[in-house]
Amino acid sequence: MKLSDLRTPSVLIDKTRLEQNVDRMQAAATARGIGLRPHAKTHKSPDLARVQIARGATGICCAKLGEAEVFAAAGIEDIRLPYPINPANADRVLKLLDLTRLSFIVDDFGVARSWSGLMRVNQREVDVLVKVDVGFHRCGIDPEARDAAEMVARVAELPGLRFRGLLSHAGHGYGAEMESEIATIAAAEARTLTRLAEEVKRLGATVQEISVGATPTARFSLKQDGITELRPGNYIYFDRTQVALGAATWDDCALTVLARVVSRPAADRIILDCGSKTLSNDQARGFSSCPGFGVVLTDLDTPRPDTTLLIERLSEEHATVRVLGTECGLKPGDLVRVLPNHACVVSNLVDSVWLVNGDAVLDELPVAARGRIA
Amino acid sequence: MKLSDLRTPSVLIDKTRLEQNVDRMQAAATARGIGLRPHAKTHKSPDLARVQIARGATGICCAKLGEAEVFAAAGIEDIRLPYPINPANADRVLKLLDLTRLSFIVDDFGVARSWSGLMRVNQREVDVLVKVDVGFHRCGIDPEARDAAEMVARVAELPGLRFRGLLSHAGHGYGAEMESEIATIAAAEARTLTRLAEEVKRLGATVQEISVGATPTARFSLKQDGITELRPGNYIYFDRTQVALGAATWDDCALTVLARVVSRPAADRIILDCGSKTLSNDQARGFSSCPGFGVVLTDLDTPRPDTTLLIERLSEEHATVRVLGTECGLKPGDLVRVLPNHACVVSNLVDSVWLVNGDAVLDELPVAARGRIA
Repeated sequence: MKLSDLRTPSVLIDKTRLEQNVDRMQAAATARGIGLRPHAKTHKSPDLARVQIARGATGICCAKLGEAEVFAAAGIEDIRLPYPINPANADRVLKLLDLTRLSFIVDDFGVARSWSGLMRVNQREVDVLVKVDVGFHRCGIDPEARDAAEMVARVAELPGLRFRGLLSHAGHGYGAEMESEIATIAAAEARTLTRLAEEVKRLGATVQEISVGATPTARFSLKQDGITELRPGNYIYFDRTQVALGAATWDDCALTVLARVVSRPAADRIILDCGSKTLSNDQARGFSSCPGFGVVLTDLDTPRPDTTLLIERLSEEHATVRVLGTECGLKPGDLVRVLPNHACVVSNLVDSVWLVNGDAVLDELPVAARGRIA
Repeated sequence: MKLSDLRTPSVLIDKTRLEQNVDRMQAAATARGIGLRPHAKTHKSPDLARVQIARGATGICCAKLGEAEVFAAAGIEDIRLPYPINPANADRVLKLLDLTRLSFIVDDFGVARSWSGLMRVNQREVDVLVKVDVGFHRCGIDPEARDAAEMVARVAELPGLRFRGLLSHAGHGYGAEMESEIATIAAAEARTLTRLAEEVKRLGATVQEISVGATPTARFSLKQDGITELRPGNYIYFDRTQVALGAATWDDCALTVLARVVSRPAADRIILDCGSKTLSNDQARGFSSCPGFGVVLTDLDTPRPDTTLLIERLSEEHATVRVLGTECGLKPGDLVRVLPNHACVVSNLVDSVWLVNGDAVLDELPVAARGRIA
């Protein structure tokens, strides 16, 4: 089967690039003696998780219990949820503990105490890490708070919980304007975590893990001391945002969308059949520096960005493309590829993706954990 | 089952509001002798399409063939695709013609001629309408072009195509700042279409249908002369955008997301478990006039907007809520409801929604045509 045999739009994964991305990140982590535990939210595929584990990953991450349930049922034996799982889900956590080594984060002593009680009643134990807010200001304890180390030490003492260490996500790296800013964020993150870990140790607790995770910071986190685990997700596919952040080149990007021109109503306007239902409305670092809802790649076999085509608007099922150049022969029926701003959210919009090699379609891969929001 | 028995996040549909929305739009169309053909993209559910048809709708619309395939298999007998279906999909169109009365749009004479050839070779006929660009500047022929009427008349003569009439979508109504602007758009749309229809008739073609569709303009389109069909979709659920556009009140909104507080890391910050994977990143008319990625409703039974809570950022699995007031007792584990900016895209993110009545959960409804992007 060839690309032109696929329905459009379809999500394509370049197998060679995927394997290269997996191997490179693994080699970099291994060289530094740091565990690599990829976030599976990017691919949501047990098949690809097995590829990552076979090449050296220590396990995977998921965000939600519903995702962990899919991966655990598929035989993945070590799953970390860097998400503040609420005790309302105790029944599901208990079932998962029978299937896999499960760990999750806490950032609230009351919640940690509830989990401790639930585990004791059920005569079980679960691995937990304390989430530390290193500047993204989403979840996590404030490491500058006077009682930060004390809170961690108290969690470490709770029966029913096996305290593993500290975990952070430097999501603010995505907002960086320059590469040096990302480097600074990664260094500050490591410093914050290792300092807090020292304080916690002084209070008598054992800190076995210091886990950081985000694709943009990964290459800088590798240079820090004290880190035991990296949790990037996006690196398996990369996308336009990662290229803009200097974490990848165009030729590293493994996920693209095959789309068809369905209307050419004006010389300066092309309509593609991939809308926000395929690409999502995610922007790449704001419209000012990185305009459009993806990049049109006009050579099907060796796709290169066409800077004369701007995806200026998405409807659910249409991409409205502005033709900036004077010459563009695209007409209804023609095929193009689009590099999305954000690959992870594209995976979540489709039931399957197609593994390809150039023009050849190799295999259909189910996105088994798609849509597991709960 | 009660709301608190559901996993979070979950998508809730208020059954009473849904039925009221369906009945009101139907009554308004019927009173004017205009056919109502709801766009099923909002609910993507054959069960709800049957509710609309039982109450008077003439059929439904879908955007993509993949959606039409789901609805046709479920027995929906009249499906219109207001989408420029490309002849690359001829095999699928031919199969659908055996199952349902199918119609679609053309906006390119070359494409229309291809369809004509394909239908003749297969000894079949298909209903087509010509799409007219009334100002949204997406698909459609330019009605001001000198050869507009002639192009339509030539399409009407093509064998294998049963020309039905003209169709438009005034999507630019979503960008209106004031209600009077929406009224003006609806009036101009009707004027453009009826004028073009007159010209086409003078060239000898029969124009049986003039079809318009969009929820914001629907109430104004009802007042115009010459229109034969309305195709709103969103009105079955409504959402925050429609409230902002004056098309609905808060109490009309049937779709909400049940979410849980999973972290309360600071007095001014709450983290909910509904991210862009549930709400989408769709904004409501730009951040300036309608900030945030949805509206938090804090009373579970009789949900009302809480203006002291701003959903200022979405990650895939987190909503970061800024607490603007001085008092907010929400803590991890607490439930809230969120009214999304855009209901249609929320349906597309879940495999099923829950029909509810107050605190009572009545039924789980599969979103059978979810994710049919092709």
